[in-house]
Amino acid sequence: MSPKITGELLRLLRQAMRNCKYFSEPLQAYIVPSGDAHQSEYIAPCDCRREFICGFNGSAGTAIVTEQHAAMWTDGRYFLQASQQMDNNWSLMKMGLKETPSQEDWLISVLPENSKVGVDPWIIAADQWKHMSKALTSAGHSLVAVQDNLIDAVWMDRPERPSTQLHVLGLEHTGISWQDKVTALRGKMTERKITWFVATALDEIAWLFNLRGADINYNPVFFAYTIVGMNSIRLFVDLKRLSDPAVRDHLQLDSPSKPDLSIQTFPYESVYNELQAICAALGPKDKVWICDKASCALTQVIPKVHRTPIPYTPLCLAKAVKNATEIEGMKIAHIKDAVALCELFAWLEKEIPKGNITEISAADKAEEFRSQQKNFVGLSFPTISSVGPNGAIIHYRPLPETNRTLTVNEVYLIDSGAQYIDGTTDVTRTMHFGTPSVFEKECFTYVLKGHIAVSAAVFPNGTKGHLLDSFARAALWEAGLDYLHGTGHGVGCFLNVHEGPCGISYKTFADEPLEAGMIVSDEPGYYEDGLFGIRIENVVLVVPAKSKHNFRNRGSLTFEPLTLVPIQVKMMNTELLTKKEKNWVNEYHRKCREVVGAELERQGRKEALDWLIKETQPIA
Amino acid sequence: MSPKITGELLRLLRQAMRNCKYFSEPLQAYIVPSGDAHQSEYIAPCDCRREFICGFNGSAGTAIVTEQHAAMWTDGRYFLQASQQMDNNWSLMKMGLKETPSQEDWLISVLPENSKVGVDPWIIAADQWKHMSKALTSAGHSLVAVQDNLIDAVWMDRPERPSTQLHVLGLEHTGISWQDKVTALRGKMTERKITWFVATALDEIAWLFNLRGADINYNPVFFAYTIVGMNSIRLFVDLKRLSDPAVRDHLQLDSPSKPDLSIQTFPYESVYNELQAICAALGPKDKVWICDKASCALTQVIPKVHRTPIPYTPLCLAKAVKNATEIEGMKIAHIKDAVALCELFAWLEKEIPKGNITEISAADKAEEFRSQQKNFVGLSFPTISSVGPNGAIIHYRPLPETNRTLTVNEVYLIDSGAQYIDGTTDVTRTMHFGTPSVFEKECFTYVLKGHIAVSAAVFPNGTKGHLLDSFARAALWEAGLDYLHGTGHGVGCFLNVHEGPCGISYKTFADEPLEAGMIVSDEPGYYEDGLFGIRIENVVLVVPAKSKHNFRNRGSLTFEPLTLVPIQVKMMNTELLTKKEKNWVNEYHRKCREVVGAELERQGRKEALDWLIKETQPIA
Repeated sequence: MSPKITGELLRLLRQAMRNCKYFSEPLQAYIVPSGDAHQSEYIAPCDCRREFICGFNGSAGTAIVTEQHAAMWTDGRYFLQASQQMDNNWSLMKMGLKETPSQEDWLISVLPENSKVGVDPWIIAADQWKHMSKALTSAGHSLVAVQDNLIDAVWMDRPERPSTQLHVLGLEHTGISWQDKVTALRGKMTERKITWFVATALDEIAWLFNLRGADINYNPVFFAYTIVGMNSIRLFVDLKRLSDPAVRDHLQLDSPSKPDLSIQTFPYESVYNELQAICAALGPKDKVWICDKASCALTQVIPKVHRTPIPYTPLCLAKAVKNATEIEGMKIAHIKDAVALCELFAWLEKEIPKGNITEISAADKAEEFRSQQKNFVGLSFPTISSVGPNGAIIHYRPLPETNRTLTVNEVYLIDSGAQYIDGTTDVTRTMHFGTPSVFEKECFTYVLKGHIAVSAAVFPNGTKGHLLDSFARAALWEAGLDYLHGTGHGVGCFLNVHEGPCGISYKTFADEPLEAGMIVSDEPGYYEDGLFGIRIENVVLVVPAKSKHNFRNRGSLTFEPLTLVPIQVKMMNTELLTKKEKNWVNEYHRKCREVVGAELERQGRKEALDWLIKETQPIA
Repeated sequence: MSPKITGELLRLLRQAMRNCKYFSEPLQAYIVPSGDAHQSEYIAPCDCRREFICGFNGSAGTAIVTEQHAAMWTDGRYFLQASQQMDNNWSLMKMGLKETPSQEDWLISVLPENSKVGVDPWIIAADQWKHMSKALTSAGHSLVAVQDNLIDAVWMDRPERPSTQLHVLGLEHTGISWQDKVTALRGKMTERKITWFVATALDEIAWLFNLRGADINYNPVFFAYTIVGMNSIRLFVDLKRLSDPAVRDHLQLDSPSKPDLSIQTFPYESVYNELQAICAALGPKDKVWICDKASCALTQVIPKVHRTPIPYTPLCLAKAVKNATEIEGMKIAHIKDAVALCELFAWLEKEIPKGNITEISAADKAEEFRSQQKNFVGLSFPTISSVGPNGAIIHYRPLPETNRTLTVNEVYLIDSGAQYIDGTTDVTRTMHFGTPSVFEKECFTYVLKGHIAVSAAVFPNGTKGHLLDSFARAALWEAGLDYLHGTGHGVGCFLNVHEGPCGISYKTFADEPLEAGMIVSDEPGYYEDGLFGIRIENVVLVVPAKSKHNFRNRGSLTFEPLTLVPIQVKMMNTELLTKKEKNWVNEYHRKCREVVGAELERQGRKEALDWLIKETQPIA
């Protein structure tokens, strides 16, 4: 990996910072966040501005350029990668280390008095703007919104914003029509006396209209905004995408069934002006909902007196609770995904001893097997296929220069998933194709104990996911071990593989209570630097639990695994498992064999079926 | 319990609200919070203003009086008590119920336009002021600080502020001189570039100066403020308390050893003016630390540009981590406390069948036994002595009209503690003196499993207490049960029985990480309304844990019980216990027998020793 040469780019950017064409006065610093205008986790190539300016292409990082300095903040996952991808025009700011200043503290320490710090208000969230602006103002500087993005101004070959074909999802996949979703949303608005709702998150808009696109890799979404009032629906999207008759018909663009369900369409770019026009006509008591993570640009269009920022929108919450049709689709997707993985593991078992399988070829093979399944659309995230020491790099992605060969001597970790029209998958298995060491087995077993502790937990209705996080860690903690990531994230249904507002993490305090129908991952791990990585991840569905008692009639919840791929018994030290844990493993494997076995049989995939049967023998 | 007659009082208060002597314009509402000027949990009689005006004497509640209405907000612990203590001039606002409006929403709904709402700025915390003021302003009203307390204006026989004798604690009890504590505080101030620190919490001031008072029941504190600069120490206290030569000598008032350790003393009331004078002389970069829960009055003296509010002061943090001397003292106190409780339980076992023991007489007997122990000062909180259904009232306190007789047919719960000069205790035991029902045993055993899960937990250095809360609930949750309170609170050393900044609760997100030397309670419970209450509470010390591995050299922590009172085996369904849990019980009882047995022997308390030996037989 050689670093990007950025001297000339920085010269151009600094020139733009001094150029009054973009702002009335010269800027002493310019902030380049890593997001797009929709708070997306994964972004389109045209939005990779931070990567463009500094070379670092990890998922999280903020670059700041001043007249003298250029610095980039990222977290522990990316210290090595960032240091390799950036040339020495850049200082790597290692977040989470005590000696690393925050962006605002650093700015204050390097800026001359009374400086102007610029940022594109479309790609900074309203809450981040507020925080940064306050810090700078209190030190005598100011944060200014520069409408023209200065990176775009110096990025000659910047890709176009994608505008892929839109696909209609029928009721057989969504369970609820977009009209009913709009009506439910308006119900929530009425309940809270809200007159307008501005949706900016791409997955929420895709979910609301039962449409999918392919504008962002791995995420079946499309660039759009929507503004919903009590009697109107405005959709902002590249209008040529709406020429498809199937889409027009689905959205009833030409013959709306009811006036209040008539969708007015506008070009993507006109959301700002249109929201301004809406706000100009607001009555004194009108309130507008917008997510507090929405862009500063759109948020500030809404006068403060009318603005009601919310940490999670009603669409985010509604989308998180899957209906019966979505749950059925997710189950089907996970069975197909298990078929593909059984095939992969059976194949690996046969091929690895020959010495020709690498991390990349194994990942490719996994994709090939998945792509043979019905309704396969693509992967849901880049496959983490890692052997031995690479497994200890939590967000590893095999590249030609790091690609290792799979052997019978090292632990193999594969974290992968797919988008099917029925649903989204995300599964991690850790396998040894030879004889694992005592320590590898010990660690695997602690991780398994944690996985089971979460998966089998019974907890009251209304419990927030973060209260379950320690269950996943207790066995590791007891041995003096831990892992430095959360335990689970929400999973979309043929949507983003990471979604809010629920999750299982020691870090998440603003998570919403778990309720039946939510789907999250359960993925504790252990990482021994330089040696191996272990993670056991299932996607699990929140379901009502039958419990002996029922305190205050609150009812209880538990999880049902949707992922049905054997967990390698060879990696377990079964002496460390309690009877209850062994029963869980056996019952889980019984279900894998029954459900996935039937599908393997139906598909005539004999070798994978044999492998499944072998791997699901009950433990004593 | 008959309600307080408040018609005339309310008439007088409303008259005061209209009286321009107190504020330039009439007030349309007046808020009466329940606290004192020091954020104290327990308050002195002179500060019981909310009780005075409405009759309700629970620990939490806010009264608001308007021209037409009088309403009092309290939480679920107190609904019954408040409804019995208040006459029908008052509306009880049940916090936590969906239909109950917040104080600000209620005010907005009842106030005429453009109203003035008054409050005494000394007894409302700065953060609460901010919240309330914002809500009222956004609705066109305003919150105004009324310097003269209007309750005091109508409270003819208001008690004097207590000014009890101050007691010096020697190094043999504190381990660190006040001079060293001041120096350490200044070190923290230097680290964070802070020039002044304002201490308002009474326990922090008592801890800092190694002094104790008896101004507030159960809390060995005294009314004072202190302001510490880099070269000066100002102590605000009723000056006649400083005439005691022992105190003068201890504080080196007449011959300070070093100029920067010279204490300037001021009358208690002059803190406002003195802080104003300090602030008037601040340089442009000077910063003043004050707790964000400090009174609005004092907080607002500090100009915003100089004010650095903190959720926990450095004294609060330093006080929480006990030094070797304090730990030794706490251990001694807990052994003596265990002696008293063994005596109590041996005596109860003998007396209950005779039918003469009540909740009150049992509590009195517990106090009597404690008072026989060396260095006993008083109770650390009002004893919760509760039988049968009374046990289900979590914050029950026996009163003549609720007092039940202890029998061999009902579960008895006693939550009690004492102040000794060496340390503070807090212990809950739940006992049956006949034959517990299957359900009582089942519930007790789940609670015990939770207690053990926390007590035996091993967790990384730096873990916050709230991450352990679910361990205490897992067994209850699995059975569909739960308890609606936190699991643990910090405990002072011959100081307040409840102290921050650490604790174990699903509610506490702002808690500080646990570290070796901190002392908290571990007290899960289960309450079956109308039948019984169960709680098992030990005070536990955070200690380093030896674990097999040591991930990232973080080190591990666990708990060591300081409380050494047998947990009744008769109440356990030992079939529900794992082998590990049985071992924990046996090891705990072995230690009780060894340590407390020796002390009982030394004190010649034969019956209690026999009881201890009987109650600490190992379980199979």
